Amino acid sequence: MTTSAATPPAAVALRSRHLLGIAGLEADEITLILDTAVAMKEIGGRAIKKVPTLRGRTVVNLFFEPSTRTRMSFEIAEKRLSADTLSVAVATSSVTKGESLLDTVRNLEAMSPDMIVMRHGSSGAPHLLARTCSSAIINAGDGMHEHPTQALLDAFTIREHKGRLAGLKIAIIGDLVHSRVLRSNALLLNTMGANVWACAPATLMPSHVERFGVHATTSVDEAIEGADVVMMLRIQHERMHGHFIPSVREYFTLFGLTPERMRRAASDAIVMHPGPMNRGVEIDSAVADGPYSVILEQVSNGVAVRMAVLYLLSGRDANDVIDEH
Amino acid sequence: MTTSAATPPAAVALRSRHLLGIAGLEADEITLILDTAVAMKEIGGRAIKKVPTLRGRTVVNLFFEPSTRTRMSFEIAEKRLSADTLSVAVATSSVTKGESLLDTVRNLEAMSPDMIVMRHGSSGAPHLLARTCSSAIINAGDGMHEHPTQALLDAFTIREHKGRLAGLKIAIIGDLVHSRVLRSNALLLNTMGANVWACAPATLMPSHVERFGVHATTSVDEAIEGADVVMMLRIQHERMHGHFIPSVREYFTLFGLTPERMRRAASDAIVMHPGPMNRGVEIDSAVADGPYSVILEQVSNGVAVRMAVLYLLSGRDANDVIDEH
Amino acid sequence: MTTSAATPPAAVALRSRHLLGIAGLEADEITLILDTAVAMKEIGGRAIKKVPTLRGRTVVNLFFEPSTRTRMSFEIAEKRLSADTLSVAVATSSVTKGESLLDTVRNLEAMSPDMIVMRHGSSGAPHLLARTCSSAIINAGDGMHEHPTQALLDAFTIREHKGRLAGLKIAIIGDLVHSRVLRSNALLLNTMGANVWACAPATLMPSHVERFGVHATTSVDEAIEGADVVMMLRIQHERMHGHFIPSVREYFTLFGLTPERMRRAASDAIVMHPGPMNRGVEIDSAVADGPYSVILEQVSNGVAVRMAVLYLLSGRDANDVIDEH
Repeated sequence: MTTSAATPPAAVALRSRHLLGIAGLEADEITLILDTAVAMKEIGGRAIKKVPTLRGRTVVNLFFEPSTRTRMSFEIAEKRLSADTLSVAVATSSVTKGESLLDTVRNLEAMSPDMIVMRHGSSGAPHLLARTCSSAIINAGDGMHEHPTQALLDAFTIREHKGRLAGLKIAIIGDLVHSRVLRSNALLLNTMGANVWACAPATLMPSHVERFGVHATTSVDEAIEGADVVMMLRIQHERMHGHFIPSVREYFTLFGLTPERMRRAASDAIVMHPGPMNRGVEIDSAVADGPYSVILEQVSNGVAVRMAVLYLLSGRDANDVIDEH
Repeated sequence: MTTSAATPPAAVALRSRHLLGIAGLEADEITLILDTAVAMKEIGGRAIKKVPTLRGRTVVNLFFEPSTRTRMSFEIAEKRLSADTLSVAVATSSVTKGESLLDTVRNLEAMSPDMIVMRHGSSGAPHLLARTCSSAIINAGDGMHEHPTQALLDAFTIREHKGRLAGLKIAIIGDLVHSRVLRSNALLLNTMGANVWACAPATLMPSHVERFGVHATTSVDEAIEGADVVMMLRIQHERMHGHFIPSVREYFTLFGLTPERMRRAASDAIVMHPGPMNRGVEIDSAVADGPYSVILEQVSNGVAVRMAVLYLLSGRDANDVIDEH
Repeated sequence: MTTSAATPPAAVALRSRHLLGIAGLEADEITLILDTAVAMKEIGGRAIKKVPTLRGRTVVNLFFEPSTRTRMSFEIAEKRLSADTLSVAVATSSVTKGESLLDTVRNLEAMSPDMIVMRHGSSGAPHLLARTCSSAIINAGDGMHEHPTQALLDAFTIREHKGRLAGLKIAIIGDLVHSRVLRSNALLLNTMGANVWACAPATLMPSHVERFGVHATTSVDEAIEGADVVMMLRIQHERMHGHFIPSVREYFTLFGLTPERMRRAASDAIVMHPGPMNRGVEIDSAVADGPYSVILEQVSNGVAVRMAVLYLLSGRDANDVIDEH
């Protein structure tokens, strides 16, 4: 829907057998994932929220960083597709060397999982593994680099509300310098033709942020002005003291999203947050729980989008998702 | 069986869609759960201990306090009903504020689980959630408040041995002031017409314990005299020093259940303990492993009772448990 | 295949309902497990890596010591056989007394699992339980005593490459004094007629190692000379300082497996390691990743061998593994 008549026919499969990042995905592949997620969301609305699509496939959730939320979303997605799932929490301390990481994953690989969902504190860790692994690798967040399923679920949620991504003004506000969510979202939204604004205090703005194809500003008012989507990013508490931010109160005063600030946005604007939220820091509860908030829809859509990614990477044909029993 | 002919016809479904506590359950609902557990226990005795009743339903075990025993019992119950299960251990430190707890559970809810089994260190935490959640909430222990499935499995075990609950003398002995087991058991047993005696040293006796409808005494001999059921509660080791109890030896001498003390009970009395036991503290090994002990039966019945609760809250019809395949 | 025509007919079932160690297994039982694993390995090569053999059976993985690798291998094996699995990590601190361990497992048993896979830091812990438990117990490593499924997967891997075990020269090199892998392998390989050499520095050589039926030597060159199989054992980092080993460098110089050392072995020798490897300590990366290395095959075969053990202990008939659906 976001590609013109002159472009090649839409993808019927992903070109890579891994999902390492938004970088490398073309517009028709992103559309394929989002379209597949529509069908998956329908499954999630049934009384029996389960299809046998991945029966007999083994998916390993390999988390080198703790993440209850993302791990649960993947696990639920896997179980709804009837995959056998294993979740492994690995203390990063035992795999500090790249070689050890490689041995850990090679051993895992030798047990023939079909897919590995992986979160790791080091940027590029999943890419390193994808070069040697025969399993499909899904990046569930690598350091400050990418978090592709987050960007896909954000895009899915926006498309559900706006019917499109192209041409929208989307403001991403908060701790941008430490954010893999900014990077993946900026890449995806640019590919799909949106206008992305990045807003942060100077101390939390990545250098050369324009390389992500975004308009940078330190003015919240400028970022929100006429925005169709306002996406707030989490401020890490550990950055609250010291040189990044003077105080919680000052951050909230200057950058917190309040009902007053939201008046500058488009009248039908939506508010997003990847969670977990710091209420009263980057976002006012009146906004987080307000009518324009789609924050819980993001969580809900995350399951559908991850089902779509798992499904498309499993090598199953895209046409038999719903019908089989 | 414990209701008279004048009462309304027995419940065919639970009136609440949650199980937050014994408080609020009426006698016919308790009987419904216990009767359903009889059918569930039969399933547990088969070679293939599995029915497809909850296939495609997602049950999340959300434990804010560690509990291997209760979590395993629920997990086994869920798997025997073919539910998809997820277990999440949450460090309480990250959810100290009620608002954060609410956000944690709202996010979980957005992933559309059908039921949430929840243990939390704060009394009333599951009730708070039940007000906003569309999932069915099962309280697996909230602070010092309630632990309804424990009381139900205790009642099931008593009924199996005695054929009834009404009219029995049941002595509950031990650390009563910190016990959600006392509270849930006293509520249930009173509703079903039993005579409950509560026995503890004065330092471990709740103030105004009579509000639970029990006879209070500090004399073990008085409590056990003629009792049909002697239920020993665990003494927490951390209460052993300081003002609660002078010493392990003194506690055992004054309150420990020995074969000698058991001679005062009814000749066919049974001994219960919710576990884990402190042998040589509240109970002598000769009693714990003796012929009147039904302690391991309690554990076994716990799976059947939890299957019954999960089943009844799933909204499935009560008549098709056993027959379907 | 390794028994002569004069021996009784091959076992069609295991004689014990537990797998506590290699001690007690006879040659025909070992052959039965290895032959069954061949069928199981075929299942692992299918697109749908799952058979309904253990549907409705509950397997509990009870790990008193952490072990991601072995636990995952068992979990994958269990899921491929369609068992319901529960994994419980128990801190050893809470079960320091034998009586407490017994209570822990009795409680678990009361929930009617069909099998318990157990790792424990104390030698003989699974044997203690097997005397009272009605579940089948599989020893997944007990202290410095036995690790039978490791020895079985090693034997499976050797047999795949050499077609037999009898008559082979097998050198086991490394930290032998702390090793349950040495013990289980020596027992199995002796039973099957192999010639086992044990090689370690004197500080890491068990006293009276000959009781395992092995040739002992402190000379790596002598151990490797003409060997068909070179099996390197892990050196624990915590033993690197103090009286066991002067330094990593010296250990590698004297005992590390290098391409040069491998020239003494048979021209078609294979190199094994139970993992996790310390590259540059007991083994050179050129060997670990070299053409004679079967280290990752061991991991892969571990799943098939564990499927075979689970299957044979489940009481199912050995002839219906593959055909059923």
